Amino acid sequence: MRIAIDAMGGDYAPAQIVRGAVEGLQFLSADDELLLLGQEDAIRAHLPPEFASHRQIRVHHCPDVIAMDDSPVEALRQKKNSSIMIMVKLASERLVDAVISAGNTGACVAAAQLKMRTLGRVQRPGIAVVLPSFHGPLTVCDVGANVAPKPHHLLQYAQMASAYSEHVLKIQNPRVGLLSIGSEEVKGSPLVKLTHELLKRDPTVNFVGNVEGRDLFSGVCEVAVCDGFVGNVVLKLTEGLSDGIFKTISREIADESPELAKRFEPVVKKIWAKHDYSEHGGAPLLGVDGICIICHGSSDARAIKNAVRITIQYAKENLNRVFCDRLTEEEPANA
Amino acid sequence: MRIAIDAMGGDYAPAQIVRGAVEGLQFLSADDELLLLGQEDAIRAHLPPEFASHRQIRVHHCPDVIAMDDSPVEALRQKKNSSIMIMVKLASERLVDAVISAGNTGACVAAAQLKMRTLGRVQRPGIAVVLPSFHGPLTVCDVGANVAPKPHHLLQYAQMASAYSEHVLKIQNPRVGLLSIGSEEVKGSPLVKLTHELLKRDPTVNFVGNVEGRDLFSGVCEVAVCDGFVGNVVLKLTEGLSDGIFKTISREIADESPELAKRFEPVVKKIWAKHDYSEHGGAPLLGVDGICIICHGSSDARAIKNAVRITIQYAKENLNRVFCDRLTEEEPANA
Repeated sequence: MRIAIDAMGGDYAPAQIVRGAVEGLQFLSADDELLLLGQEDAIRAHLPPEFASHRQIRVHHCPDVIAMDDSPVEALRQKKNSSIMIMVKLASERLVDAVISAGNTGACVAAAQLKMRTLGRVQRPGIAVVLPSFHGPLTVCDVGANVAPKPHHLLQYAQMASAYSEHVLKIQNPRVGLLSIGSEEVKGSPLVKLTHELLKRDPTVNFVGNVEGRDLFSGVCEVAVCDGFVGNVVLKLTEGLSDGIFKTISREIADESPELAKRFEPVVKKIWAKHDYSEHGGAPLLGVDGICIICHGSSDARAIKNAVRITIQYAKENLNRVFCDRLTEEEPANA
Repeated sequence: MRIAIDAMGGDYAPAQIVRGAVEGLQFLSADDELLLLGQEDAIRAHLPPEFASHRQIRVHHCPDVIAMDDSPVEALRQKKNSSIMIMVKLASERLVDAVISAGNTGACVAAAQLKMRTLGRVQRPGIAVVLPSFHGPLTVCDVGANVAPKPHHLLQYAQMASAYSEHVLKIQNPRVGLLSIGSEEVKGSPLVKLTHELLKRDPTVNFVGNVEGRDLFSGVCEVAVCDGFVGNVVLKLTEGLSDGIFKTISREIADESPELAKRFEPVVKKIWAKHDYSEHGGAPLLGVDGICIICHGSSDARAIKNAVRITIQYAKENLNRVFCDRLTEEEPANA
């Protein structure tokens, strides 16, 4: 398979992206290939000499660069020769099988939705992010691709995210929760109530009912579905709050005693290592015809390496075929 | 003034509620009164003898009890003589000036909305919760009263929550953020985009633009507005995640060394004390004609005592008058 990697995307691009790609070579089969997209000089400057003409690495020059804070809509219109735009174009022409980017998320998702078709019965792709909860990985879908979904979209997210959790994270029969504001069926928005009905009737999903914000990390489910607005808030709040709490604790301990702070440090490192998002290598955009992995903006080489690993696993498990088989036939009137 | 307290509501009712009411007496003026509502025997059993016939404490017998997990709709229909229902009835008849409950939140909000009228130009009341962020108190409105608000409702939440932050929390000219999924104006749901326009034009609100989940606790604003669904998820996720992180750290430290764990304990206690929700005494339901304070289900005596304190402050500052003055005249077509 051919995997396109956006070498210009992310806070540590191109250095960490190129390094991560090189480290990802270990997961490739003999006839797999990595395609690094971006400004050729910049990429080559970071490519170690021994990999400069590696037979499984190619560099594809793209003169335009989409910045992390560019407006997605403007960027896609004006920067047609950016790594992101070229990458999805190659995917749409079947010249690559998968795309990976740690760049401007909005631009990347919009580009993928624009150029890569949706898969079979999928109506709208959704981003599934794997959060390291205290009880194992939790897959949340959608976290930003679809801010005003229909109930049928959320049903499909439940079906696809379940399959992802099962096949990529190796969780058997993952429990699926519908994020709401009360565990009772009668609570929630109209979207939640209608989705609840669809999920209850679906035999392919191990639905455990509505879950609340406080349950997300307490191990009541391995998959949570919600609209892209709520999911995005959950994702970013989780990041900001975790970071804030650890900083606060570190500061308080340092105030207490520098010696204690020194002893606390390895404990924090151990916890971060256990709950490191980069372990899961990025968030798949589920439902596109191809493989699209959105990495965190602050991805380092390790995250990119893991993105290559899960991309290969995604392909090996033939996940898109699994999705097509699982997605229910019916498309209700309200979808 | 007369303050009604639901003595049967909350995980530690009636013991902690009654104790908190007694402790709250210190904030009362000579002609203020506390009315304890609930099953008289249960309340009297927890009232210390020296307060049994205190001239500022009265007990109002209510035979029915709404349980924490009762369905709000059913409970209000079937338990007409519960402390919650009687309390809001007294408020609607102006027989009490304020109501406080740590009971079934759904039932309490629904009852208040049902019986207490809305204030002047207020269209829909909203729950404002004060979260102890790392940079001082953050007021989030709404966290569950209004799951499908119109832009004009969110504008009113911004206006009322600003006034609350200013008058009760004593924050000068509080910065107001609109919770969204990107700081750019063009991002977000249709609700967010329309609300953004209203907030930008409003001269009474110190609007700092859209804020993301990760900014909530980083001190970019002192007030955040959002729909009740998102706000409720934010509130509960914050609780669940904070709790989970502290537990994880404690466990990891205990695994490392019991001696280290012992030294870490007071640090944790200090942080919890600094960020203790009960310090802020409950969440006001902004926009009802009267004062309604919703306390956390796990409120202890201290939280109830503080709820009495902020109720008195709310009245002293004549907050409802401030709201009426601030709420803008216009009620746009899309409100």
